[in-house]
Amino acid sequence: MQFYNVKSVEETLAIIKQHVAPINATVTLPLPEARGHVLAEDIIAPEDVPGFDRSTVDGYAVKAQDTYGSSESTPQFLEVVGEIEMGEEVTQRLQGGQAMAIPTGGMLPPGSDSVIMVEYCENMDGLLNTYRQVAPMENVIQKGEDIRQGDKLLAKGTRLRAQELGALASLGITEVTVYRPIRVGYLSSGDEIVPFQTKRLQVGQVRDINQLTIAALVEEWGGEVILGGIVPDEYETFKWTAQRLFEQVDFLVLSGGSSVGAKDYTTEVIQSLGDPGVLVHGVSIKPGKPTIFSMAGNKPVLGLPGHPASAMLIFLLFGQTAMGRLQGETEHNIPRRIEARITQNIASSPGRSDYIRVRLVEREGEWWAEPVLGKSGLISTLVASDGVVEIASVKEGVRQGEWVPVLLLR
Amino acid sequence: MQFYNVKSVEETLAIIKQHVAPINATVTLPLPEARGHVLAEDIIAPEDVPGFDRSTVDGYAVKAQDTYGSSESTPQFLEVVGEIEMGEEVTQRLQGGQAMAIPTGGMLPPGSDSVIMVEYCENMDGLLNTYRQVAPMENVIQKGEDIRQGDKLLAKGTRLRAQELGALASLGITEVTVYRPIRVGYLSSGDEIVPFQTKRLQVGQVRDINQLTIAALVEEWGGEVILGGIVPDEYETFKWTAQRLFEQVDFLVLSGGSSVGAKDYTTEVIQSLGDPGVLVHGVSIKPGKPTIFSMAGNKPVLGLPGHPASAMLIFLLFGQTAMGRLQGETEHNIPRRIEARITQNIASSPGRSDYIRVRLVEREGEWWAEPVLGKSGLISTLVASDGVVEIASVKEGVRQGEWVPVLLLR
Repeated sequence: MQFYNVKSVEETLAIIKQHVAPINATVTLPLPEARGHVLAEDIIAPEDVPGFDRSTVDGYAVKAQDTYGSSESTPQFLEVVGEIEMGEEVTQRLQGGQAMAIPTGGMLPPGSDSVIMVEYCENMDGLLNTYRQVAPMENVIQKGEDIRQGDKLLAKGTRLRAQELGALASLGITEVTVYRPIRVGYLSSGDEIVPFQTKRLQVGQVRDINQLTIAALVEEWGGEVILGGIVPDEYETFKWTAQRLFEQVDFLVLSGGSSVGAKDYTTEVIQSLGDPGVLVHGVSIKPGKPTIFSMAGNKPVLGLPGHPASAMLIFLLFGQTAMGRLQGETEHNIPRRIEARITQNIASSPGRSDYIRVRLVEREGEWWAEPVLGKSGLISTLVASDGVVEIASVKEGVRQGEWVPVLLLR
Repeated sequence: MQFYNVKSVEETLAIIKQHVAPINATVTLPLPEARGHVLAEDIIAPEDVPGFDRSTVDGYAVKAQDTYGSSESTPQFLEVVGEIEMGEEVTQRLQGGQAMAIPTGGMLPPGSDSVIMVEYCENMDGLLNTYRQVAPMENVIQKGEDIRQGDKLLAKGTRLRAQELGALASLGITEVTVYRPIRVGYLSSGDEIVPFQTKRLQVGQVRDINQLTIAALVEEWGGEVILGGIVPDEYETFKWTAQRLFEQVDFLVLSGGSSVGAKDYTTEVIQSLGDPGVLVHGVSIKPGKPTIFSMAGNKPVLGLPGHPASAMLIFLLFGQTAMGRLQGETEHNIPRRIEARITQNIASSPGRSDYIRVRLVEREGEWWAEPVLGKSGLISTLVASDGVVEIASVKEGVRQGEWVPVLLLR
């Protein structure tokens, strides 16, 4: 067993990514219920979208070459031979010198290759005056231009947003196979911790806040929470409760008891869950140093510091990374971090990553990060915060006006 | 009735903010179910948090003045008179020259004013050697330092994130009054539109994609969707269906039929729902010009363009704003927009806001926005996009390397 095997934030993230693999359980969901889930299969387009050449404007389907040289003063003249209805298959072939009225989204008749907008022509008793020329395929979306049959539309590991659901719907796909939501177990420990529902506290007691904050973050990221309650600082009870919860979940999160103290059983309990056991014991981060990361078989276990603000930050950094890996999500680019300018100098110790709670304020189109003062144990400072500024371990601090990365607290 | 009363994006947003007010319906929810909801009441702290002076470290509770002048070479010596247990009320008063062992989170004994960390002292058979001095209140969170009884902790209009739930839990608040989730009705129109479940399309038909994308966005923002199905381009059916759906919802969204065409009944249907009626008919935006915003009584109605990508963008811009107002959410600072540098020159027409789909790529700690090419009707371009760059109507375009605002597509 290793005690205070302290790692940097970057090392801890690398260890999590190295050890945590996607769960091997999938579920098939109807498309309208699949939002936020992660695809467990590649999606190959079974057909072309659109399935026919469509007009993108209201106008007249023409052969582009029939319009060449058209201008306000020298229009070309085409014979209007019909009107295309929406949703209707058109079989009549367009001949040279002909045009057909077409609505936005209508199907181009065979023989036509472009559409002239209604604004740039005039129908005079069946004779169409064209005041502009159009190029082939102008104002047309071609068959298969959006999605081509046989192409890989979406890769396994894609989290389904509104637009992915739309793309699947456009292909007539009505259900998808996704990883089942991961189950995260959460257990608080500490003799002083009482259920948050406790109306009147005895002196010395504190309510279980982390249960609410961690559960909210798990649900926000698409997981299910299984609450294990609160255990006292008593080794056998703690171990028995943790082991029972561990069996039901994909990822176990414990809070409290991770400092080096007389009643610190957390490391022993975590170690008892299985091998390889504790991989990180202490992270060079402020706040949040007494963080534990362990693997028991293929399940990650995270020991959070007890202070609510530290626990939330650590779960944002490491818990979200572990959940993303378990859920099979491919890394993507959507920023959880933005750049902002810091409103004041902040000192920091090299060799340690510092996280400063900040309020974001927009000034002349730029984001400024304004530190929220207060000790790390204060939940009220998080309520006042929009994000946390990350001062990397290689830095000795930041200067007023400097651009800094801000991890967003949504 | 006004036709093509074209407004800028800014004017349209101002009209929405001016006309849409919070719904007057609230619901009381247990705290664990309140995530993402908006408070319909101010929260006044009923007690102090913490309820007692707490230690933030493992160490010894002392009187700070007893440690003054301590150093490695010249320690002070204090008598250890007890050990504080977690969760226990301490009644024994600390006298001058005394110290008591205290764990992180433990209650300070009366008479003590600070805690010396276990690393900076040594207990030699009941005699504590202090190797550093501490200041009054060092390593202590004072009673009420996090939240003070009687203070307004949260204001009406606050959307509840993880940290707000934590702060409420710390006060023993078990349920909150929030605005009930708003109900958004969605109806597609068009003779060519068929349910997305349709397995084999006839030529000329397209599946109803917007139903999926708009419903996903509404749910993502905490609303409930009521689907009205698909109506053909037939005035009476359209009007009857829209009116029936309108009665059930707080906000009605229609898609399709909003261009000026022979079968454009959308404006008439919207106008029939009530006064004051259509306020915006056409927005100087690309894509998305044929957008309608209307008020029927106190309910907003939004007519979206039919193209999926345009419909999504317009709903992101205007639908989200209307939903936020209906839900009573106070404006807040969490960025939906970030700044990124554009990878190529883009031309734009002054007098029109242009939205360019982009992929975000991180290069040396900076976000770069790389345009995703393709016509606005293509859902596949949205699948490839992380956001849209906004080129304001006053600009004639942007130059390669310029910082531009990106509206994120999560």
